[in-house]
Amino acid sequence: MDCEVIAVGTELLLGQIVDTNSSWIGEQLALAGIDSHHQTKVGDNWSRIEEALQLGIERSDAIIVCGGLGPTQDDITREVIADVVKSDLVLDDVIAERIRGMFRSRGRDMPENNLRQAMVPEGAQTMEQQPGTAPGLVVPVPVSDGDDKVIYAVPGVPYEMKEMILGTVLPDLQRRSGVTSVIESRVLRTWGQSESGLAELLSHRITELETAGNPTLAFLASGVEGIKVRVTAKAATSDEAEEILRQEEDVLRGLLGDLIFAVDEDNMESTVLTLLATEGLTLGAVETTTGGYLAHRLATARNGTEAFSGGVVARGPGILSYLLKGDPAAWQPDEAAMQMARVARGILLSDVGVATTAIEDPGRATDAQPFGTAWLAVSMEGFETVERVTLPGDLERIRQFSVISLLNLLRLHLQGLRP
Amino acid sequence: MDCEVIAVGTELLLGQIVDTNSSWIGEQLALAGIDSHHQTKVGDNWSRIEEALQLGIERSDAIIVCGGLGPTQDDITREVIADVVKSDLVLDDVIAERIRGMFRSRGRDMPENNLRQAMVPEGAQTMEQQPGTAPGLVVPVPVSDGDDKVIYAVPGVPYEMKEMILGTVLPDLQRRSGVTSVIESRVLRTWGQSESGLAELLSHRITELETAGNPTLAFLASGVEGIKVRVTAKAATSDEAEEILRQEEDVLRGLLGDLIFAVDEDNMESTVLTLLATEGLTLGAVETTTGGYLAHRLATARNGTEAFSGGVVARGPGILSYLLKGDPAAWQPDEAAMQMARVARGILLSDVGVATTAIEDPGRATDAQPFGTAWLAVSMEGFETVERVTLPGDLERIRQFSVISLLNLLRLHLQGLRP
Repeated sequence: MDCEVIAVGTELLLGQIVDTNSSWIGEQLALAGIDSHHQTKVGDNWSRIEEALQLGIERSDAIIVCGGLGPTQDDITREVIADVVKSDLVLDDVIAERIRGMFRSRGRDMPENNLRQAMVPEGAQTMEQQPGTAPGLVVPVPVSDGDDKVIYAVPGVPYEMKEMILGTVLPDLQRRSGVTSVIESRVLRTWGQSESGLAELLSHRITELETAGNPTLAFLASGVEGIKVRVTAKAATSDEAEEILRQEEDVLRGLLGDLIFAVDEDNMESTVLTLLATEGLTLGAVETTTGGYLAHRLATARNGTEAFSGGVVARGPGILSYLLKGDPAAWQPDEAAMQMARVARGILLSDVGVATTAIEDPGRATDAQPFGTAWLAVSMEGFETVERVTLPGDLERIRQFSVISLLNLLRLHLQGLRP
Repeated sequence: MDCEVIAVGTELLLGQIVDTNSSWIGEQLALAGIDSHHQTKVGDNWSRIEEALQLGIERSDAIIVCGGLGPTQDDITREVIADVVKSDLVLDDVIAERIRGMFRSRGRDMPENNLRQAMVPEGAQTMEQQPGTAPGLVVPVPVSDGDDKVIYAVPGVPYEMKEMILGTVLPDLQRRSGVTSVIESRVLRTWGQSESGLAELLSHRITELETAGNPTLAFLASGVEGIKVRVTAKAATSDEAEEILRQEEDVLRGLLGDLIFAVDEDNMESTVLTLLATEGLTLGAVETTTGGYLAHRLATARNGTEAFSGGVVARGPGILSYLLKGDPAAWQPDEAAMQMARVARGILLSDVGVATTAIEDPGRATDAQPFGTAWLAVSMEGFETVERVTLPGDLERIRQFSVISLLNLLRLHLQGLRP
């Protein structure tokens, strides 16, 4: 089963918006075990959308078209799809009423334009999920020699798109891929080992699973988000699939131990903040090199933000002298990091303090402390630690990796995995 | 002249990396007046790269291939291009020596693998810019009925790619587009008006330029970066083109006044920090809702970061009470913002203090202060102001727009444009 993605919108070609939708869809397809070999951007232009759809029907089993379902004249995805599958557009009364209802509930009149969004190609299904005014479409494409192909049309608004992909498109693709059984997957997120290191730790288990065939494992390197291990289980019922996933997670946790920091959508900061919130603890952060990146990740986490007290971003000599009670140059970096973690608790009135600083100026790097050396410090009642790491890459990467490494250090202590 | 973009890399399809390169290239092409109607992602797969190149040659005048020029076995862009244009790969001695020199200067031996990067299709040119080990390629594609087409190959590493696109690809495309004259452009960045608002302010001038034909104007809406106005001038020499741009910039500044905050690559934070640095002033920032986004943009600006003292991110009640010297609930939001801007100067030992806070909890929104209401405050010697704005969109958008709106407020004062 090969599913390609077509992102529609002139603003994508002009670089006014970065096409993050295709990337997200690509990852979801990979996690669901569906190939995606082509991803294309096209403008709001009839002949080029048509050309992309024709090409997709030729070479792939399924197409996800993202964008161009809005109410205005340049939103032509619906019309082009209807033309390509040689169907007429007909008004879907249920969808029309739903759109009218949305406007009513906001106390506004519906512009007649919006009824364009209720036009559906004959023979197509609308998706149950409809968080905005644009309905998602499932459009069968009859082919003369073989099984039907399919075009899914979803809006370009990320949260609307995501709800439809997860709720309708992925299950439908899995059903079409000929699997009558239930397929479910779980993602274990790891930090602290390379992809080849993980493969080595799991080599015996990988061989066993290759023989058994179910569940299957796959790795996805995700940069600053760590390396994801996807477990996919096939079973007659959802309960059975869940049971297989639960057992396999146990096996993998036995082999990978504290490398696993979270499951599915949780990332490092929401994991740490949730651990803190559960224990009624609050967190304050002091940072230098990372310049607000640490605070921003904590403040915008998907869970547990109530545990984040706040942060101090120290860039100039004044605030550094204040935090370090004197000349910053008089401190060794490891002691400075520790001091800043302690001060974080005081200034930000938090139970736990973390701090990070790094050699960010190549002019100040030495052989003993090269560019990219970072110090990570944690201070809380009964526990204090400072760790030195050497991070590769440019300053942007050093910033990202020192933040996650620091949060991981705190995570390991909170979970009782490191003394 | 239509130039398509092919981004090569399996990690792009899997969503492990978002393809920001194509977006950046798309914007540069638009700014240079070159059409880009197709942008495609393909994996590190011979037949699919080949298929994408063949399709590109058929339908476009030029192709930029980005990625797959590394030294490892799965970097096959060079080989596929040579195959498509029916050329042999030959070792380029100059490039080989350049790569060896790079390794020598870092005190490392060159793995023999890296010589793969010095293999160049016969008849192709290498690009002068070579910031990394991968050379960029300009590969002519003979076509039977008409002018040669061209494939440009550039690395996927963003800073290497950007240097080559600006230094070689865009000038070469402009030369090929049949223009013997020099084409130069300048981007005026604006904040504070919608695209239609700008068009109205400039309507008379737009009509004049449409009649004259040179220079030309174009708008590019760029979200949190504002709306860009591109001026493109054609002339016999670069000096003459520059003179046209200079004159047109004067005319547009006369019409748009303080809406223009920067030119070309400078953004809002580097503009504000440079203004401060020039006057020897430092800036401290206190933020609540924006959670470190303000500090992070200032700390990572491309210019003037020496003027940024640091920031405080206040999320919990403890730090808020400290900053506001008592119960945060006792303050009106405008007065709280002002107080935080003043405190920023004290705590962060800076000459200028800025602060922003917003209604971010829908449960605390009221008719008088709806969700998305933000307060922006500036405090410096001889000047204090607090402004209230109502921002549309979700929390992420409110965060972005309050940061830029706040910096714009300070910019207007520093430039003497608002009292």
